[in-house]
Amino acid sequence: MVGEQRKKIIIDTDPGIDDAMAIFVALNSPEVDVIGLTTIYGNVYTTLATLNALHLLEVAGRTDIPVAEGTHKTIMNGTKLRIADFVHGKDGLGNQNFPPPKGKPIEKSAPEFLAEQAKLHPGEITVVALGPLTNIALAIQLDPEFSKNVGQIVLLGGAFAVNGNVNPASEANVEAADIVFTCGADVIAVGINVTHQVIMTADDRDKLAASNGKLAKYLCKILGVYYSYHLDAYEIEGVYLHDPTTILAAFLPSLFTYTEGVVRVQTNGITRGLTLLYNNRKRFEEVTEWTDKPSVKVAVTVDAPAVLKLIMDRLMES
Amino acid sequence: MVGEQRKKIIIDTDPGIDDAMAIFVALNSPEVDVIGLTTIYGNVYTTLATLNALHLLEVAGRTDIPVAEGTHKTIMNGTKLRIADFVHGKDGLGNQNFPPPKGKPIEKSAPEFLAEQAKLHPGEITVVALGPLTNIALAIQLDPEFSKNVGQIVLLGGAFAVNGNVNPASEANVEAADIVFTCGADVIAVGINVTHQVIMTADDRDKLAASNGKLAKYLCKILGVYYSYHLDAYEIEGVYLHDPTTILAAFLPSLFTYTEGVVRVQTNGITRGLTLLYNNRKRFEEVTEWTDKPSVKVAVTVDAPAVLKLIMDRLMES
Repeated sequence: MVGEQRKKIIIDTDPGIDDAMAIFVALNSPEVDVIGLTTIYGNVYTTLATLNALHLLEVAGRTDIPVAEGTHKTIMNGTKLRIADFVHGKDGLGNQNFPPPKGKPIEKSAPEFLAEQAKLHPGEITVVALGPLTNIALAIQLDPEFSKNVGQIVLLGGAFAVNGNVNPASEANVEAADIVFTCGADVIAVGINVTHQVIMTADDRDKLAASNGKLAKYLCKILGVYYSYHLDAYEIEGVYLHDPTTILAAFLPSLFTYTEGVVRVQTNGITRGLTLLYNNRKRFEEVTEWTDKPSVKVAVTVDAPAVLKLIMDRLMES
Repeated sequence: MVGEQRKKIIIDTDPGIDDAMAIFVALNSPEVDVIGLTTIYGNVYTTLATLNALHLLEVAGRTDIPVAEGTHKTIMNGTKLRIADFVHGKDGLGNQNFPPPKGKPIEKSAPEFLAEQAKLHPGEITVVALGPLTNIALAIQLDPEFSKNVGQIVLLGGAFAVNGNVNPASEANVEAADIVFTCGADVIAVGINVTHQVIMTADDRDKLAASNGKLAKYLCKILGVYYSYHLDAYEIEGVYLHDPTTILAAFLPSLFTYTEGVVRVQTNGITRGLTLLYNNRKRFEEVTEWTDKPSVKVAVTVDAPAVLKLIMDRLMES
């Protein structure tokens, strides 16, 4: 596959153990050309996300890829950041005390970089958003043309017709999501209703460890706390592959099936963060908050064995 | 089946065409003893609901059953009543201009009657709530022992993991529901995720019309607007049997399967009215609004052919 045919993707990320897996999968995927990483708080604070993004590119030998640092604040001023270091370790990468990276982020902020690249390559950039959607929302606010310029936004976000992972209503990434879901761009949402179907077992981890892949061996070092968390919170001997699954939706969309409709996000009250898809089945008497808003695609099913095999294969390449 | 063994039920109702069907099914069911109807706004205003309840008992020749009139106001003062006369006709019974009933409601209000009967027969009364849950919530507030005294509350309410019927978030009956869902009584919720599976087709209506059943013939007169509404709103040639299905859950619970968990209702914002069941799958880091609240049963599947057949058979009895 020659470079010109590859899909240009920017990964908005909060590494994060499964972010590391997703970035490595993308770097080992001939279908895509990773043209940048943008960083956001989520699994860790943004400053650490940036250091981890630089570190992961150094581990992969891909320091040619620029890292643009994202915002340190939520879109709603004053909202306290919720950091999931209890899932990924204090350092976001399994408490391994890696040395600090040598590289630095670029001067441009994440929203500036996103808007710039979308403008530079109209219709060609796929943004894969693996964390809270704040940088994407800021890019939409920064450049009213961003939604038109961007090729596609593939986001990990929402809990469609299932419980959330922050509380029964809310998935972790959806804070700024209402802006993104209604921006009019070509959006694919991959929610935890789908990513909870893709589980890497302890056996799978043993396979990674036994392989000769440099990235696979690195991941095995950091995966411990992630397995512990899943055993504790979900009582499963395996880990959900949220981020690597979402990355695949960006360039191998036929591994999923989709439905289409308007998605809105509840922004207050006990179900704050809840994503609600209107499936167009009923004609309502009244105008609703879903009326006349742009539709998005929402992943409904996933070929989980195929997705798991692809992720494993690509992580075990040297 | 002798009277003593029959399940005592009180039907809280807003007739309503499918309410009429549910009341008739109950009256023709040897398993139950309908000891009263209580009325509530919903399909029509409460005053009309009371007149219709009295009228339906006269049609069925069961004027021995008392009717207690419920509240005319929502539980949250100032909330505008939403009346679904576009579904059931201006008179709630298919615009047939029936003569006014001869009977009158009893002196006691619906919440008083509910609390009184539950106290009189502790653990024995099943309240089947087919409308907005305001009377039930008021009975809970009126008598702190009501939740303990009542045998079971079987309610038509909620849209679990599916779109609502008022808007994409909300089902029509859940306004006062958060109080009822968390009151600690034995509650079974039958949501539109289940009742939308029980459809009476135009062919079924023809069967009713061809039968010798007095009640079946009466229902065929009033069903026209209900079929028209379903064709218009859902593009189906049939009607959902919300209320008759829910009645059956009160005395033939094995026609359904259930899950259990805490249900909370969002009371503001764009998803106001949304019912959210926490399925206990994940242990959350933080205390949530679902923590330490009483669990309820929520119907998940229904043997729709068996339910439809039972409803048809009992309506066609003379």
